[in-house]
Amino acid sequence: MNFKEEYLKRQNIINSKIEKYLNIDNFDHLNYSRKIIDAMRYSMFAGGKRLRPILLISFHSMVEGDIEESLALACAIEMIHTYSLIHDDLPSMDDDDYRRGKLTNHMVFGEGMAILAGDALLNMAYEIMIDNARKYPNNICNHLRSMYIISSSSGVNGMISGQVADISYQDEYIELDALEFIHGYKTAALIKASVLAGIMLEDVDRELISCARKYGENIGLAFQITDDILDITGSFEDLGKKVGSDQKNKKNTYPLLYGIDKSKKIVNDLITEAVEALRPFGEKADFLERLAINIINRQN
Amino acid sequence: MNFKEEYLKRQNIINSKIEKYLNIDNFDHLNYSRKIIDAMRYSMFAGGKRLRPILLISFHSMVEGDIEESLALACAIEMIHTYSLIHDDLPSMDDDDYRRGKLTNHMVFGEGMAILAGDALLNMAYEIMIDNARKYPNNICNHLRSMYIISSSSGVNGMISGQVADISYQDEYIELDALEFIHGYKTAALIKASVLAGIMLEDVDRELISCARKYGENIGLAFQITDDILDITGSFEDLGKKVGSDQKNKKNTYPLLYGIDKSKKIVNDLITEAVEALRPFGEKADFLERLAINIINRQN
Repeated sequence: MNFKEEYLKRQNIINSKIEKYLNIDNFDHLNYSRKIIDAMRYSMFAGGKRLRPILLISFHSMVEGDIEESLALACAIEMIHTYSLIHDDLPSMDDDDYRRGKLTNHMVFGEGMAILAGDALLNMAYEIMIDNARKYPNNICNHLRSMYIISSSSGVNGMISGQVADISYQDEYIELDALEFIHGYKTAALIKASVLAGIMLEDVDRELISCARKYGENIGLAFQITDDILDITGSFEDLGKKVGSDQKNKKNTYPLLYGIDKSKKIVNDLITEAVEALRPFGEKADFLERLAINIINRQN
Repeated sequence: MNFKEEYLKRQNIINSKIEKYLNIDNFDHLNYSRKIIDAMRYSMFAGGKRLRPILLISFHSMVEGDIEESLALACAIEMIHTYSLIHDDLPSMDDDDYRRGKLTNHMVFGEGMAILAGDALLNMAYEIMIDNARKYPNNICNHLRSMYIISSSSGVNGMISGQVADISYQDEYIELDALEFIHGYKTAALIKASVLAGIMLEDVDRELISCARKYGENIGLAFQITDDILDITGSFEDLGKKVGSDQKNKKNTYPLLYGIDKSKKIVNDLITEAVEALRPFGEKADFLERLAINIINRQN
């Protein structure tokens, strides 16, 4: 199976499970809550790449974990990612009309409903992780360990602080320190958490965990830098959102600070190191190696 | 110790623990996140009664639990309650300028920051519950059970659906069914969850849990109806927010449907039943009995 087929296969596994969690039949009193479920489903099925959940189940299965056990955490992390996008797009934050080629949640469902749909996805992420952990009493400490990684990476010492910094700097150019902080926390924190939550669901050596952490950190940052590059070089068709929006919003980015060529070189170096970090896992890491390399070539 | 002293004592225990969780020293990179921590603290220390956390620790200690073990869940439920208030007050929801006599969060910190502060409190609630559960490996299944009650009561099958229904009916009079739904979910769900999460942290008989559930349901609804009554009969000084706002927003309420006298009678009946439900707990339930009776007489 080539990389693309293998990625699609894992994507399908994730999508089926998310579909199960968000199946309309799971919800009570639909006469009241139909609209919010529609809003939650709208953004959850708006064409996300599923990078974070795929990383989580792939690291878990690489250390001989049964992905049946990690799928709930994988879907939860995608829900957390999606809630953060819905809230980031709001008029009082980045004020974006399009995301992935579709109208943003608040453009379709209104601002109040978009805020609640985000809240509901964040809450549901924890609900399904808690419920899932109860099914594995023999591995419950590892479950809580992985859940703690996800929660601390999502909160005010993690992802949220990146968004706080981002909105604080709107309309002013910022120094490199702040840029790295925003990148590191707004996007990379959750990518790294996906990697760690996956591998730490099993009992593995601390050295292997360090290697996974290095991989997660590097691809998280590389992923964000390619995002910035695509904002300049990409097209609306590829990206599904307006290009040049970072420049319009006067956002500092790697390409703006370093130019496109040097930014691409930074991405290449990060990916080379990430691939290096996978070495102790041997050929079981094939898929994750190809996934890292693919980040260099991504078009959306 | 009379009831008021005992209530204040428990309130102080809760407040000290919340202060510990939200102590500025717990947070990293304050140059970026100082503002959101200020926003979180602003609403967490805006004079809340701490009803939910007090219910949680009181039910837990009534069944011989050590409140050191339940305090994290108690603070978490107050964080969830507070996040829901911050988001409910937003311009795209209820658009309230005052709460508990103080400007609402978005009036002080701006809309974007208020949304993020709410998100951060919701996330932090889970972070501290997960972290706390890891400290009690011998009671971890009960912890997850209580956490699951809290999460499912807070989500789209619980509290959030009440808010969805509430904003859907704005500006139109609604039938009793919908009113009861909004009351039941928007407010009472989390009050009931506080009771159940507290008692179910220990291994107790199913019959006692049923009694606790009855108590939680009744005081949850009674609490909400007195809220509606106070919106008509109270003063700004007592309530800390504009009175008559329900009528202004054309909100259906018990007093509007039944009149004030009948509404008060309903509250009395609910409290009588709640006190009745405590009987199997004997005199250990003294505090909770007085707490229920106090709901009838509350002025804010």
